[in-house]
Amino acid sequence: MAEQKATNVTWHEHRVSSADRKKLKGQKSCVLWFTGLSGAGKSTVANTVDHKLAEIGKHTYLLDGDNVRMGLNKNLGFSAEDRTENIRRIGEVAKLFSDAGLVTLTAFISPYKADRDIARELLEEGEFIEVYVQASLATCEERDPKGLYKKARAGEIKGFTGIDAPYEAPDNAELVLDSDAHGIDELADQVVAYLESNGYLSA
Amino acid sequence: MAEQKATNVTWHEHRVSSADRKKLKGQKSCVLWFTGLSGAGKSTVANTVDHKLAEIGKHTYLLDGDNVRMGLNKNLGFSAEDRTENIRRIGEVAKLFSDAGLVTLTAFISPYKADRDIARELLEEGEFIEVYVQASLATCEERDPKGLYKKARAGEIKGFTGIDAPYEAPDNAELVLDSDAHGIDELADQVVAYLESNGYLSA
Repeated sequence: MAEQKATNVTWHEHRVSSADRKKLKGQKSCVLWFTGLSGAGKSTVANTVDHKLAEIGKHTYLLDGDNVRMGLNKNLGFSAEDRTENIRRIGEVAKLFSDAGLVTLTAFISPYKADRDIARELLEEGEFIEVYVQASLATCEERDPKGLYKKARAGEIKGFTGIDAPYEAPDNAELVLDSDAHGIDELADQVVAYLESNGYLSA
Repeated sequence: MAEQKATNVTWHEHRVSSADRKKLKGQKSCVLWFTGLSGAGKSTVANTVDHKLAEIGKHTYLLDGDNVRMGLNKNLGFSAEDRTENIRRIGEVAKLFSDAGLVTLTAFISPYKADRDIARELLEEGEFIEVYVQASLATCEERDPKGLYKKARAGEIKGFTGIDAPYEAPDNAELVLDSDAHGIDELADQVVAYLESNGYLSA
């Protein structure tokens, strides 16, 4: 028992705390959780925010379909169970990135309120910032950047969010971005302004 | 089709590259993959390296049982299949952290060569640094920091690495640390010296 205690003490002595990691980076950390329909502009806005923050020397990381679905979550499909596990893992990984002191951005449709709330509950008060990228279905279908709405309307894709699967809009998002009315750059500036005015960009 | 191409271009324009992230941090990134028997000193050495790097202003993150088994991998047990999935997910997450520009440390027994090689293959040449924390079973059993060897010998824990489950020692580790002969601080210094002399600690 004495041995075990001593080991624990050594371990804690050397542990770099999350506070230490943030201090080194001159910022607070958080998870900017972008949610919205396919084509609403989540990835583009998140990438633009990421870029604007990097330009002012802030330490960030962006989790999106490109680096998550092809890697960590490549063994998950699109069943209800797998979608939930997909979002759970993203939430847990975002939590690790925030613990590492980074402003963490996630850009996934994440259509279910319950799943987003699981991610929210993993994090501390003020650490989870839900960003609802709001666009009408008509706008998204007109943009259809990946041609997916066309396929969904043709019945080639089943269970597509907004067509034959639900999107549950947030009712308590920290930020709502009007993607019908404003351009990408303006929306990204709104996010950066939120971070600035809420003290996230200084230690 | 024209629309899709345009979207991709916009996306790439704003993308913060892994090179940008490293440059901002004044370092190269890598994954220090600590492997070895329970009690060999993996976590303690990894924590000490983490601490030494943070003290000289380097940007790091440590993945270990405390922040992974309780979160991301809490739905995994200790079957052969689950152990493999455990290491696969850790490898994928370590890859994300390295992509984010951080010196990433992982401290898991990771007893199977094939599993460690999966992690190695996820990463670029020179990005995966296998650190074998070598200690005799006798040393580890004597230390027994968590009292687990005692329980394994008593048959209270089944499939315990080194007792009734194999540990496959690396035969091509980038670094071998002799934990029988040297103290924690000295071993940690060997890791930091390796990073310095191989150019990881400058951009």
